[in-house]
Amino acid sequence: MSSQFSVDLNCDLGESFGSWVIGNDEAILPYVSSANIACGFHAGDPSIMMKTIALARKHQVAIGAHPGFADLAGFGRREIQVSPKEVYALMVYQIGAISTCANVQGTVLHHVKPHGALYNMAAKDTALADAIAHAIYDIDPTLILYGLSGSELVHAGKKRGLTVYQEVFADRTYQLDGTLTPRKAENAIITDHRQAVEQVLQMIKYGKVISLQGAEVPIQADTVCLHGDNLEAVHLAKEIYQALRNQNIAIP
Amino acid sequence: MSSQFSVDLNCDLGESFGSWVIGNDEAILPYVSSANIACGFHAGDPSIMMKTIALARKHQVAIGAHPGFADLAGFGRREIQVSPKEVYALMVYQIGAISTCANVQGTVLHHVKPHGALYNMAAKDTALADAIAHAIYDIDPTLILYGLSGSELVHAGKKRGLTVYQEVFADRTYQLDGTLTPRKAENAIITDHRQAVEQVLQMIKYGKVISLQGAEVPIQADTVCLHGDNLEAVHLAKEIYQALRNQNIAIP
Amino acid sequence: MSSQFSVDLNCDLGESFGSWVIGNDEAILPYVSSANIACGFHAGDPSIMMKTIALARKHQVAIGAHPGFADLAGFGRREIQVSPKEVYALMVYQIGAISTCANVQGTVLHHVKPHGALYNMAAKDTALADAIAHAIYDIDPTLILYGLSGSELVHAGKKRGLTVYQEVFADRTYQLDGTLTPRKAENAIITDHRQAVEQVLQMIKYGKVISLQGAEVPIQADTVCLHGDNLEAVHLAKEIYQALRNQNIAIP
Amino acid sequence: MSSQFSVDLNCDLGESFGSWVIGNDEAILPYVSSANIACGFHAGDPSIMMKTIALARKHQVAIGAHPGFADLAGFGRREIQVSPKEVYALMVYQIGAISTCANVQGTVLHHVKPHGALYNMAAKDTALADAIAHAIYDIDPTLILYGLSGSELVHAGKKRGLTVYQEVFADRTYQLDGTLTPRKAENAIITDHRQAVEQVLQMIKYGKVISLQGAEVPIQADTVCLHGDNLEAVHLAKEIYQALRNQNIAIP
Repeated sequence: MSSQFSVDLNCDLGESFGSWVIGNDEAILPYVSSANIACGFHAGDPSIMMKTIALARKHQVAIGAHPGFADLAGFGRREIQVSPKEVYALMVYQIGAISTCANVQGTVLHHVKPHGALYNMAAKDTALADAIAHAIYDIDPTLILYGLSGSELVHAGKKRGLTVYQEVFADRTYQLDGTLTPRKAENAIITDHRQAVEQVLQMIKYGKVISLQGAEVPIQADTVCLHGDNLEAVHLAKEIYQALRNQNIAIP
Repeated sequence: MSSQFSVDLNCDLGESFGSWVIGNDEAILPYVSSANIACGFHAGDPSIMMKTIALARKHQVAIGAHPGFADLAGFGRREIQVSPKEVYALMVYQIGAISTCANVQGTVLHHVKPHGALYNMAAKDTALADAIAHAIYDIDPTLILYGLSGSELVHAGKKRGLTVYQEVFADRTYQLDGTLTPRKAENAIITDHRQAVEQVLQMIKYGKVISLQGAEVPIQADTVCLHGDNLEAVHLAKEIYQALRNQNIAIP
Repeated sequence: MSSQFSVDLNCDLGESFGSWVIGNDEAILPYVSSANIACGFHAGDPSIMMKTIALARKHQVAIGAHPGFADLAGFGRREIQVSPKEVYALMVYQIGAISTCANVQGTVLHHVKPHGALYNMAAKDTALADAIAHAIYDIDPTLILYGLSGSELVHAGKKRGLTVYQEVFADRTYQLDGTLTPRKAENAIITDHRQAVEQVLQMIKYGKVISLQGAEVPIQADTVCLHGDNLEAVHLAKEIYQALRNQNIAIP
Repeated sequence: MSSQFSVDLNCDLGESFGSWVIGNDEAILPYVSSANIACGFHAGDPSIMMKTIALARKHQVAIGAHPGFADLAGFGRREIQVSPKEVYALMVYQIGAISTCANVQGTVLHHVKPHGALYNMAAKDTALADAIAHAIYDIDPTLILYGLSGSELVHAGKKRGLTVYQEVFADRTYQLDGTLTPRKAENAIITDHRQAVEQVLQMIKYGKVISLQGAEVPIQADTVCLHGDNLEAVHLAKEIYQALRNQNIAIP
């Protein structure tokens, strides 16, 4: 019996830098179908990128670019004032770099997911969102754009003719308008694994999420963001992965 | 009457960074046939790379990558201890980045010339030289490798099956073994423009150079390195360009 | 006859980085009484700081710290989200570094002027302004704080018990509320040297400025910001310097 | 009964950067008497420096500067070609920065230990060694210089009139000439804790070490370098600390 539902599971990978190690890349890989690999601007460096691509390949996980702001000190999480033209150049540079790192290893880039502050800014700012979509389209129109479900980035990608995966979060609560509860707000994070798994299943099977305010909100879930930052996060990833398998939901 | 001889004229371009400007890019472009564009590690940034590629295109100058060490503070001129594997990754990353910057502008990368300390180290170190040639070959075997005439880098490129342009200098004196007089030594630089032009013509037409010691040394001159750092250098470039034209030596 | 009025003339100095040169440091020094020296975060590096301090000393110009965001690529001109605690640490680090560079040359730090985006953010944000004033006070309560005339930074400095120099601009127009016309707005810059000189004299002698809207606005002018970016700016600096001398206005 | 012998125990601290964490700073602090704190060039940043100083103070551990090359990507472990004048400026900048970070917390800098490649280069290169000693002396002649026992750096410090602590290693083997066995050589590292403890006791009590070749070599041991990189290293530190206590050897 073939599955009625399917969903991609993605995680950020290769966020170490030089001698500094972050994340449990080996531990999270069995539970995801695609990886967003840092491109040297907010994290990662050429050697780490090469190794991370090899690691993802070994686990048969699709390889994506995870471009961000040139801000090692802030891990790409701080908003930086940039023009759409600068963002276009940032994207072309980083995607070109990692794409070539993949090619020399006999594989190809599968998708692009902007990182951190760039992801958040592009969710709301139409001009930045379009600059990102435009860059991806110009590089390779078959690349898939990952963006926050329902965001400006998703709209910009569709307008440019890209395949877009709308991304949802297992461990974050949602607002009435379908946006994420800001990270610093109370109740922003779902710490109960059972609740997180339930939220994911509901989003995939019924296309909706219960907002923090209690109302049902429609949401498109093409890919779920998982984390390998700590062992707790890896455990949640494993639980989500197994729940999807149990429910016969296809993972690429 | 078609020309018997031909030579490429190259210069470094796009070495500004953020708000800092270096070089007279506009002034030197009329006198060269190929440009080596900084890739963001020793100089340049994504926005500058995009602009520089557009500028080179406007002047119908072939676009090359000029990858270097990640050392903005030292402008890529300081030796850094790296393994061949690290150099391979450095090359793939930077060449991939600039190549994609060229592609989205509807053009393609023509050649690769390592910068500064990387160029000098690869001239002598077989393992580094091969790592560079290997990276270029894996990215695109039709890319042309520019290396110091007679150096290990030239040999490594040929072994890998790359087209190699052997590079000579107009304003530098040579030693008996065909190497450059070290920059800090006395008489390392040729300041007399007439002598510099003469040296270039002799290298192209007769395949030899008069060493600092007075002996004729055989040398292969496929491309001549010109500079746009200051107006004096631009004048010399113009004189060399015109002398070649006068002698009916073809420039691509 | 002693002068009735006095004013400090300051300029930014030492904003080169590695091989990149910016500004006409030598040319502007004869026309200023104090220099704000970049501290290695937005521009400058340890060697350049040492040289710039020596140069300022030679011209008997007071030495100030010009701390900024750690953003070479953006020259410290882009807003970066930082907490007051982070700003406190940024200030202590940079002021400590340059102060010690001055001490080993037998001189001492005279003042602190935050740079670029940090200066602008501190003009409006009370918490950031206080973090800056707090850091300066903790390092050395005799250091003078330079801040935009009438800004939150000026108030924060006074509250902490610092001596504060309120800074005015010769070549910028003012709004009705005493703030600067935003740089990107029309008529933000005064290009007519005569008008710029006139504005400076009026601010010093009568404590007021004619706003862009035509009304007189009270303004405190303890120090005037001059520039050495280009020769035009140096000429204006010279004209202002000479006008003050002619009017018998004391410059320290 | 007062102790006949005494020795300082030091470790590197505060080598995290931005979001990246390295080392077990809390775990190692109970077993050392002095800490070498990264100064933002090879590791550390202003906020981390402030926190690390506070942490060291809490444990009543003496605070030292651990200046290194500006090479985050290489963690300061790669040799960089610098002139003595550049090294002097690097030292003044970094020591000034961390010293001021200590001062605003009501404490003072106790010592300086160059980091990584700078430490190794200064052990052999007289000119670099003197530049370091000169900088420390000019900043504050009461600062203690930590250098490899018997090295050029130790000699340079003494010549300048500094108090010098000669540093020995518990977990490294020594050569006949008293130098460390190069890290990449076989038998460079002592993995047996009992042997490491024994080596330390012998160096302190008898002023000698058994070289890898079996001969006794005289060595001065004023301070022992311990590590907090991993739990194994912390265990060794604890064992050394306790062995010294048991032998009634004083630790400051």
